[in-house]
Amino acid sequence: MKLIEKELTEEKIFKGRLLDVRKYTVELPDGKHTTRELVVHPGAVAILPIEDENVYLVEQHRFPIRKNLIEIPAGKFDTPNEDPLECGKRELEEEIGKKADEWIYLGYIYTTPGFSNEIIHLYMAKNLKDGTMNTDDDEFINVKKLKINEFEEQIKDGTITDAKTITAYTRAKLMGGI
Amino acid sequence: MKLIEKELTEEKIFKGRLLDVRKYTVELPDGKHTTRELVVHPGAVAILPIEDENVYLVEQHRFPIRKNLIEIPAGKFDTPNEDPLECGKRELEEEIGKKADEWIYLGYIYTTPGFSNEIIHLYMAKNLKDGTMNTDDDEFINVKKLKINEFEEQIKDGTITDAKTITAYTRAKLMGGI
Repeated sequence: MKLIEKELTEEKIFKGRLLDVRKYTVELPDGKHTTRELVVHPGAVAILPIEDENVYLVEQHRFPIRKNLIEIPAGKFDTPNEDPLECGKRELEEEIGKKADEWIYLGYIYTTPGFSNEIIHLYMAKNLKDGTMNTDDDEFINVKKLKINEFEEQIKDGTITDAKTITAYTRAKLMGGI
Repeated sequence: MKLIEKELTEEKIFKGRLLDVRKYTVELPDGKHTTRELVVHPGAVAILPIEDENVYLVEQHRFPIRKNLIEIPAGKFDTPNEDPLECGKRELEEEIGKKADEWIYLGYIYTTPGFSNEIIHLYMAKNLKDGTMNTDDDEFINVKKLKINEFEEQIKDGTITDAKTITAYTRAKLMGGI
């Protein structure tokens, strides 16, 4: 069965500081019309930083879920066409104060394709060296260092719940990087 | 450092057929105020259905990314307090026409904690038997069956890009289920 949905109209619903919400009418595969609502996202990068047998993680309060989460460093593109690697380098240094000499691309993921076009490019960063930590004004972060086997255990036991963090681990593991 | 953000005000921005967008003012850990915008989500369930050495997947057109994606069966709670297992049973049967005698909980993930509270509960379903496929009116699905090793290869090589699908695989693998 052909599954494609054809865009008929676009309506801008809300453009805030973070969210860009739009509503579309589309033609379904059976010719009927329906509406689709979605959050337009610029794209993002997440980085798995490895040093010896350790991984660096960040603890952040995530207001949408009212919890602190343990995640790999990540950040949005400054512009929709930003180079993912440049974005990754900037975010790694801003969030954990490290640069890296070796960058290995782990492919991309869609986090929530039902209601947003968010794509996250995943990298592994190795051969770390000191840089300058510099978080945004409204961004508060505790940097954590875990042994890779502890990191794996926390993914297994459900302590780590962040999808981009788990997928970066999976791709790195399957590709033989950790 | 204490990281919590205190909610001060809530404003309802948009309530559509799918999206519920709200804006908050919050007090940051340093006492300053900022705004947070987010998509309120009812929660969801995703199911990794295993039969012998095969996994069942669904191919769907995802309008937000203008692509067909290969994913495990999944669906949103009908109500915010719906029992995850009941939701999983409903979605598995609706999307691939199968019931299961064995359900193994794989924990939960947050898909996009930067701008939504979406939580997805993950299950592995085994001992499958025939049920009745019954998709929503605007939902068109091709059911796919892959060998587990092909599924793993497609996660590794980037053919499979859906975060909930990869995380369900990871938890099942680490927990010894596949």
